[in-house]
Amino acid sequence: MKNFEFHNPTRIVFGLDTVAKLSTLVPHDARVLILYGGASAEKTGTLAEVRTALALGQRTVQEFGGIEPNPSYETLMRAVAQVRSEKLDFLLAVGGGSVIDGTKFVAAAALYDGEPWEIAERGGANVQRALPFGTVLTLPATGSEMNSGGVVTKKATHAKLSFRNPLLYPQFSVLDPGKTFTLPSTQVANGLVDAFVHTTEQYLTYPVQAKVQDRFAEGLLQTLVEIAPQAVASPDDYATRANLMWTATLALNGLIGAGVPQDWATHMIGHELTALYDIDHARTLALVLPALLDVQREQKRGKLLQYGERVWNITQGSDDERIAAAIARTRAFFEGLGIPTRLSAYQLGQEAVEAVLTQLEAHGMTSLGEHRDIDLARSRRILEAAL
Amino acid sequence: MKNFEFHNPTRIVFGLDTVAKLSTLVPHDARVLILYGGASAEKTGTLAEVRTALALGQRTVQEFGGIEPNPSYETLMRAVAQVRSEKLDFLLAVGGGSVIDGTKFVAAAALYDGEPWEIAERGGANVQRALPFGTVLTLPATGSEMNSGGVVTKKATHAKLSFRNPLLYPQFSVLDPGKTFTLPSTQVANGLVDAFVHTTEQYLTYPVQAKVQDRFAEGLLQTLVEIAPQAVASPDDYATRANLMWTATLALNGLIGAGVPQDWATHMIGHELTALYDIDHARTLALVLPALLDVQREQKRGKLLQYGERVWNITQGSDDERIAAAIARTRAFFEGLGIPTRLSAYQLGQEAVEAVLTQLEAHGMTSLGEHRDIDLARSRRILEAAL
Repeated sequence: MKNFEFHNPTRIVFGLDTVAKLSTLVPHDARVLILYGGASAEKTGTLAEVRTALALGQRTVQEFGGIEPNPSYETLMRAVAQVRSEKLDFLLAVGGGSVIDGTKFVAAAALYDGEPWEIAERGGANVQRALPFGTVLTLPATGSEMNSGGVVTKKATHAKLSFRNPLLYPQFSVLDPGKTFTLPSTQVANGLVDAFVHTTEQYLTYPVQAKVQDRFAEGLLQTLVEIAPQAVASPDDYATRANLMWTATLALNGLIGAGVPQDWATHMIGHELTALYDIDHARTLALVLPALLDVQREQKRGKLLQYGERVWNITQGSDDERIAAAIARTRAFFEGLGIPTRLSAYQLGQEAVEAVLTQLEAHGMTSLGEHRDIDLARSRRILEAAL
Repeated sequence: MKNFEFHNPTRIVFGLDTVAKLSTLVPHDARVLILYGGASAEKTGTLAEVRTALALGQRTVQEFGGIEPNPSYETLMRAVAQVRSEKLDFLLAVGGGSVIDGTKFVAAAALYDGEPWEIAERGGANVQRALPFGTVLTLPATGSEMNSGGVVTKKATHAKLSFRNPLLYPQFSVLDPGKTFTLPSTQVANGLVDAFVHTTEQYLTYPVQAKVQDRFAEGLLQTLVEIAPQAVASPDDYATRANLMWTATLALNGLIGAGVPQDWATHMIGHELTALYDIDHARTLALVLPALLDVQREQKRGKLLQYGERVWNITQGSDDERIAAAIARTRAFFEGLGIPTRLSAYQLGQEAVEAVLTQLEAHGMTSLGEHRDIDLARSRRILEAAL
C-alpha cells in the first residue's frame, strides 16, 4: 500500500424526503445562490422543495439556471458576475455532476483575483479561497457531490479541463434517491457507466497489496453489475436507486483511490471526445475503456485477472483467455445498457482519431496512465482499437 | 436502505514514517498535552519521534502517561486536572484505542461544567464543547482513531460506559503501520478480533437491500480472514500490517454502518465481562459473538446465509447446516488466533452468568440488538451458550 492522506469533510444527508433538511443545513443568514441546469429541476418539483426549505430563516435567495451538461466557462462566468454584484455568500447546487462541477468553479472563481480560467489551467492549484456551498443531487453518476474536483469546458477553444482543491468539498450534499425517479433511462445508464469507470480508473492498474481498497472497488463494481438491469427498467424502485446513488458517490470520494495507483487515461481521452463531438461524458468512457484495457493488458495483467475472477466469476481458461473474457464482459455490460463501445456508432472514424490526438497533444496529455506510458502513439492504438 | 447521515471530518495520514508530519498537523502555537499508556511508547521510540516533531514551532508540550487498558475515569480525571491547571489547549493521543478513548473523554471533560462522569452517564449527549485533539495510532483494533466515540470505566463501581459526540472526532490521525512491528502477537490477535466483531455488529443483522454496505463489510471480513495468519506470524511484514491497520479503521468509522441496522449486543455484554473480570475487550467479543449468533440465528437467518457464502464460501448443505457452518467457522477463526470462545477458558462458570446479568440490569441493558429483543432472559441464553 502506498502512503496516503484521506480527508473528506462533506456531510452526506441520504434518504427519502431529505430536501427539507436544507432549512438547517444552509446558514440562516446566508445570501444564497441556487444554481441549476435545465427545466427538469423546475418540472420535477425539486426546485420548489428547495425554495420552500430555504424560505425559513433570514436568507436572501437568488437563482441561476441554465448550467449546461459539461458546464461552460462562458455560462459560469455569468453566475460569477451575479455572485459578485449581489454579494452572495453561499452557493447551492441543485442537479447532477455538471451543475455541481460548475458550482465548484463559481465558488472558486468568485473570490479569485485574476482571470478565473487560470483556475482550470492550473488544475485548481491556485485556489486560495472559495465560497461555501452545498448540493442537492438529482443524478447519480459523477461523485462530484462528495469530492473536491470538477471539470469545466471553454467553448471558445473546445478545452475541457479538470480542477481540484481541498477548499472545494461541498459542506453538505443531500442525496434523495426519490429525486432520481424521473430521470430518463439514458441518464441512468450513463450514471452506471460513469460510476463503473470511476472505479476501474482506481482499481485496474497494478497490485500494491491494498486488499481493502481492492475489495471495496470490487464491491462497487459488483453492485453496479447487479443493479444495472433493474436501475434502468424500474424508475421508481427506491432500493435500487438508493444503491445506485450511494455507489456512485463512493466510487469517487477518495476512499477507493487512497493508497493505490490510479490510471485516469480513459477520462483524459474521453474528455477530448466530449469537447470535440459533444458525446456524453459517460459514453466517451465506454468508448475508451475496453480499448484501453486491450492495449494495456500486459501492464494490467495481475489486476485484470483478479477483476475477471472477482467481478465476473471468470475462473476457467488460460490467463490470456480470462483477460480477454473480462474485457469482453466489460464491453458487453456497456453495450447491454445501450451504450456503444465503438466510435463507428457515432459515425466517427480515422479522422476522429487524428483530431483527438491533436487535442491530447495541445493539452499536454502525452504521458497518461498509472505508468505514464500512454504517449500519443499508444493513445493512437487505443483510439484505433475503438473504431 | 435506511435514511442516514454520514460525516467524518478526521484527516487520515497513513503510511511509513509519517509521525514527523505532526510538525505541521499540530498548530504551531498550541499548548499540547501528549497522552499515552505504558512504557512501550517510550521503549519503541515513538514518543521520542513525537517529541521531536512537536519541538518545532512555538509549542508548549507536556505529557501524561499511564492511561491503562480500559481507561479509567479516575486516571483520566488527573489528566483533566493537568489540562485545566496548565491551560493546555490541544491533546495528542499516542497509543491504541484505550489511550484515544481516554483522550476523547479528557477533551470533553476538561471543558465540561459539572461532574464529568455525567458525560459517560449521558452517553456523550451532553457534550457541548471539546478540546481539539489528534492521534498517533500504535495498535490497530478499535477504530477510535476515526470515530467520535469512546468507552470509559469507573473503577469504583465497575461501570464501563460508552459515549459519543460529533465534537469528538480527532482532527487528524497518523497511522504508521511500521509502529505496529513491536506489538505483542496477542495484541495483534486481539486487534483482528476487535475489527472483525465491529464489522459483524453492523452487518450480521437483517437485510435492508444495502448492497454496498454489505459488500464493504464482507470485504473487511474477507481481508481480516486473509491476513490473520501473516499478521500474527510476521511482525515486520509491512504490507500485512498496513492492511490490518486500514481495515480496523474502516471497520468503525461510520461507513459500513450508514443506512443499515446495527446490533452491538455482543459489545454490551462483553463490556460487562471486562468490567467484572478484566478480560481484554476483544477477548470478550470472541466469547459472546458465536454464542449470540447461535441464539439469534432465526432473527439473523438471511444475513448469516449471505455471510457464510460470501465470507466463508459455504455453499453446500441445507440453510440450517450452512448457518451452523458459518458460526463454526467464526468460532474456529477466533480460536485459531489463540483467543478462547468459552467462558470456561477463563475458569468462569454459571456464577459469571449471574454476575453479568446483574450488571446488565443495573446498566439498563435489557433490550439489546437490532430488534431490541435481547432481554435479560435472552442474554442468559447467550451467556450460557458461551459456557
